[in-house]
Amino acid sequence: MERLKQQFEFIREIDKEKFIGRQTYLTDGVRKENDAEHAWHMAIMTILLSEYANEEIDVLKTVTMLLIHDIVEIDAGDTYAYDEEGKKTQKKREQKAAERIFGLLPEDQGRKLKAIWEEFEDCETKEAKFARTMDNLQPVMLNDATGGKAWEEHGVHLNQVLRRNQNTHQGSETLWEYELENFIMPNVEKGHLKRGETGK
Amino acid sequence: MERLKQQFEFIREIDKEKFIGRQTYLTDGVRKENDAEHAWHMAIMTILLSEYANEEIDVLKTVTMLLIHDIVEIDAGDTYAYDEEGKKTQKKREQKAAERIFGLLPEDQGRKLKAIWEEFEDCETKEAKFARTMDNLQPVMLNDATGGKAWEEHGVHLNQVLRRNQNTHQGSETLWEYELENFIMPNVEKGHLKRGETGK
Repeated sequence: MERLKQQFEFIREIDKEKFIGRQTYLTDGVRKENDAEHAWHMAIMTILLSEYANEEIDVLKTVTMLLIHDIVEIDAGDTYAYDEEGKKTQKKREQKAAERIFGLLPEDQGRKLKAIWEEFEDCETKEAKFARTMDNLQPVMLNDATGGKAWEEHGVHLNQVLRRNQNTHQGSETLWEYELENFIMPNVEKGHLKRGETGK
Repeated sequence: MERLKQQFEFIREIDKEKFIGRQTYLTDGVRKENDAEHAWHMAIMTILLSEYANEEIDVLKTVTMLLIHDIVEIDAGDTYAYDEEGKKTQKKREQKAAERIFGLLPEDQGRKLKAIWEEFEDCETKEAKFARTMDNLQPVMLNDATGGKAWEEHGVHLNQVLRRNQNTHQGSETLWEYELENFIMPNVEKGHLKRGETGK
């Protein structure tokens, strides 16, 4: 039962992902989302929206990728999309976290999950590209649902959102067009996203 | 784009699952879990533990089942495992919720997800049985991790936990044995679960 013991050590450890806060408000506009909730939401989105992927994707692989992609933040913390300072050390912090946390698992499963996490980070396969589309789209959708609350609080500019979403179309042209038209541009019109350039 | 509009209506609506509280404490022993966090945890558990299923299961179908099985609680609320009064009206409340919430989706996807939810409820297929194993095991694992905190607060008896888990073995004999030996019986020894009969 050594194998099961290792698996449950990992399962108990990842409970901590529920305590990693993000900057996005939930639809009530009061509480902010945590990593586990974010991953759950995107997993369901993938099951429903995979029909719009540019290339046909392996849904289970993509769902697995999204369910585990933020586990490294248990050690490395969440780095806000527009926090340029934090992003400088992000990669190193997350690599170390991946070693430790996926290392709790039996060797074969740890290796497999770490490889899926690295695939997400590298963003080269069609599954990783679609997962990234979800990871960009989901918070934008929630930002729209809350009247751009987190964007306003951080004084976010349109060009920052566009830069953050520069690869969203690589997973799905259809979803990127929908996102731009329905979740981003209306918030520029309403003044929730600032026009003009920003150095960030 | 009518189809995408319906899909995003559903995706926005299910954000509310993040506000449905459960009775189980997270590993910090302070905050209680919500339905979305619970579903996320079990989806990863399924990916890791499906190798112990009594019969080989369709992992994507089982993961989908677990990701969506509590969505009905957005309307119907969470019914605590040992709340016998609430359980009397639970089925009717949840059926009505399923009609409304899955009804937001395009007809084909709504029908498919509702069928998967009903499959979980009926608990007859191997995927539903394994999903039920996860749904029983996950809170017991967290209860053990917090020194039986929720059990003590509710004065839960061993025979209630055993009755609640009477079908856990149907998904996986191995996991049920592990759960009984490592997460349940040690809590009886430590006095976190009461011995003796209870009418509940």
